[in-house]
Amino acid sequence: MARRIVVIGGDAAGMSAASTAKRRGGDDVEVIAIERGEYTSYSQCGIPYWVGGEVPGHDELVARSPEQHRANGLTVRMATEATAIDLADRSVAVRDVGTDEEDTIGFDELVIATGARPIRPPLPGIDADGVFGIQTIPDGRRVLDALAAGRPTKKAIVVGAGFIGIEIAEALVAQGLDVTVVSRAAHPMTSMDHEMGERISEAMKSAGIEVRTGAVAEAFEVGDDGWVRAVVVDGVAIECDIVTLGIGVEPETSLAADAGLTLGDDGGLRPDDSMRVADGVWAAGDCVEVRDRVLDRWTYMPLGTHANKQGLVVGANLTGGSSTFPGVVRTAITRFGDLEISRSGATERECRDLDVRSVSVDTTTHAGYLPDHEPMTVRLTFEMETGRLLGGQIVGGKGAAMRIDTIAMALWSRMSVDELMMTDLAYVPPFSSVWDPVQVAARAAVSVRAGG
Amino acid sequence: MARRIVVIGGDAAGMSAASTAKRRGGDDVEVIAIERGEYTSYSQCGIPYWVGGEVPGHDELVARSPEQHRANGLTVRMATEATAIDLADRSVAVRDVGTDEEDTIGFDELVIATGARPIRPPLPGIDADGVFGIQTIPDGRRVLDALAAGRPTKKAIVVGAGFIGIEIAEALVAQGLDVTVVSRAAHPMTSMDHEMGERISEAMKSAGIEVRTGAVAEAFEVGDDGWVRAVVVDGVAIECDIVTLGIGVEPETSLAADAGLTLGDDGGLRPDDSMRVADGVWAAGDCVEVRDRVLDRWTYMPLGTHANKQGLVVGANLTGGSSTFPGVVRTAITRFGDLEISRSGATERECRDLDVRSVSVDTTTHAGYLPDHEPMTVRLTFEMETGRLLGGQIVGGKGAAMRIDTIAMALWSRMSVDELMMTDLAYVPPFSSVWDPVQVAARAAVSVRAGG
Repeated sequence: MARRIVVIGGDAAGMSAASTAKRRGGDDVEVIAIERGEYTSYSQCGIPYWVGGEVPGHDELVARSPEQHRANGLTVRMATEATAIDLADRSVAVRDVGTDEEDTIGFDELVIATGARPIRPPLPGIDADGVFGIQTIPDGRRVLDALAAGRPTKKAIVVGAGFIGIEIAEALVAQGLDVTVVSRAAHPMTSMDHEMGERISEAMKSAGIEVRTGAVAEAFEVGDDGWVRAVVVDGVAIECDIVTLGIGVEPETSLAADAGLTLGDDGGLRPDDSMRVADGVWAAGDCVEVRDRVLDRWTYMPLGTHANKQGLVVGANLTGGSSTFPGVVRTAITRFGDLEISRSGATERECRDLDVRSVSVDTTTHAGYLPDHEPMTVRLTFEMETGRLLGGQIVGGKGAAMRIDTIAMALWSRMSVDELMMTDLAYVPPFSSVWDPVQVAARAAVSVRAGG
Repeated sequence: MARRIVVIGGDAAGMSAASTAKRRGGDDVEVIAIERGEYTSYSQCGIPYWVGGEVPGHDELVARSPEQHRANGLTVRMATEATAIDLADRSVAVRDVGTDEEDTIGFDELVIATGARPIRPPLPGIDADGVFGIQTIPDGRRVLDALAAGRPTKKAIVVGAGFIGIEIAEALVAQGLDVTVVSRAAHPMTSMDHEMGERISEAMKSAGIEVRTGAVAEAFEVGDDGWVRAVVVDGVAIECDIVTLGIGVEPETSLAADAGLTLGDDGGLRPDDSMRVADGVWAAGDCVEVRDRVLDRWTYMPLGTHANKQGLVVGANLTGGSSTFPGVVRTAITRFGDLEISRSGATERECRDLDVRSVSVDTTTHAGYLPDHEPMTVRLTFEMETGRLLGGQIVGGKGAAMRIDTIAMALWSRMSVDELMMTDLAYVPPFSSVWDPVQVAARAAVSVRAGG
């Protein structure tokens, strides 16, 4: 008889695991995927670009629909919410979201891919109409519906200035709105050091955004129609027509916790290298914590890239493979308008227990004597004694941000700045400089270590 | 008394060594740089873009002029040719190129940075007027002078289809010429595997270039005015107004050989890791061979990136440092029109003694649902038994070629395709896909190894 694999969660991690297991296991496995929403395998990261009008419709964001998964031999139960996991009984209790009908599905192996939920602090009025998250396709649709409705929508407030916050701020500017971004932090993008955050702040201001840093959104004032009409920031109400929340997500692990599985400090599951959390139970995606290879500690880094890889690992291991997920170096990238932004590894702030230094170098994306070169700034943080690279950050014009992959690969392999300086990177004048921008920064780091 | 360092050759390697030694050594060193030409520290790689009209003048290509070097405390003797090295006497014989005056300069330490010379096979007519190399600023100026002269210049023949050959072909097309490229090889860019070379060939043909592969230029017919009027290819004369040679360069090491220094199989000096070739004698740049870290053998890879790094190493070691040049992975990049081209590591052909496989994957530079994504093809070659990555090649649209740096970094660290697949690369829809294009190829390689 076929082994039954039940997968909770139909997005990147879950469906990668499900698809991989079915492709490898064939008739030896029955794979049942449970998804409480109406979409499978879609690009969360693409939602801001849909809201901003660059992607014509949400269909484009769906990599593989339930029908496509079914055609590949998977059983996909949509609009079905898992309500409990019974590890002793080897079963999952489910509820049909439409009919409230309940059911129990037995499993031989379970994959927990329940993802993340947006953080919604218990502030007065936060559940008002017009206060939107930006995590799912329905979230995006609600924002676009609000913009399309008769209601005059001129002023938006974005709470939070991390990756999603600035991406949605850009999208709303593209939609013609007047945008204020409110952030508790001293600068946008707290995953960057202050001087880089300041450059991002400048770019946002140049785009007409009001950037309120060190500012706390305390409450949401609601109109008689139930729609948000203002955000109270440090005691002062700022009127607005819509609010979007970009204050991060947390692991959706209540089912797992209720089933007795142990959670980590950030609330995520902590699988072993093979992505197993208990005997016959696997976890992948935004509901798990990951090992940070740079600081050698657990961290929470909910990204589609990791979810897909972890799903692949789980799918392989469910079907006789011996695959491992080797951890992350916390690479991330985005853009704000023409400004490209990326980072990998640790910030200087995160390294305060170590004897570290940072260098920031202003250079250009390629040879300054050719047209279209753009300014870029590379910041590297490194350990003073050993020279080991600990982190890198980039802001700059077109062609700047993807250089972070060189830094990510150096961090992955635990390189020193001295070694990075000597690596063999591509050069021809239209694409780079004879010392690659990353190596210009590495040279500066080497010079600091030499006391220069 | 200051130690005297004599540097033969005033371009990237020599002047990096000279500048670094003076910056570090200060008054403890006297640095004399000898250059037979009229420029120092200029970008050879930029010459095709100057000839093509993208760079307005050759001044832009000069990173640092003799005057600037002198202002930094160097003695720079321009238009001065070294004619002999006497290692026993610790001196260099020189000749003033203008006056033929001879002189001898003693040294405590010598840096040989004599560069490369274009290969000019002894074919009939090759020294005719109108047959140009493309290596130095004077070379570029001669081509531009020819185009600007009253002489009708409509038809160009480029002999050679390597990096310089296709770059100069593009430049001549940009100047409005009708261009034929003649190459002995079966496809352009023999540092790429055939299928990638074919794509480059297609792009060249689309730009209106006639591409004659497997074709041998046997002679150059010369008109009564001494100017080339045709190239004889496989017995048939093809009329033309100018010819450019892009058939590669060879190490300029005759001085070194005459001084009794040992040369390698490719005719270059083979320094140790510190770039020393004999007691108190150093070498750097296009006159040296380098260690290929991938195939663990000597190779000849005359590139400005290596020259600069080697110069830095020599300059440091001349002044109490203990720096090493760690070798290369043979990364290279160029573009032809809108087609971006890059490679690193070994081709499949070069690995024929190993049990290797290659995969080629057609993908896109970033998320297909966003505008401006471009097609790109990634080819990876890997060892079947161990999975070790041996080489990578990329052709594609805007944003494709610089992805080679990820491959270069993986090769540098001797990664397997399995590990490369799991590295933490940057993703956001405007810049990449959730599986980075390089990782899509790595997945295909992993699948081949698994027998998929």
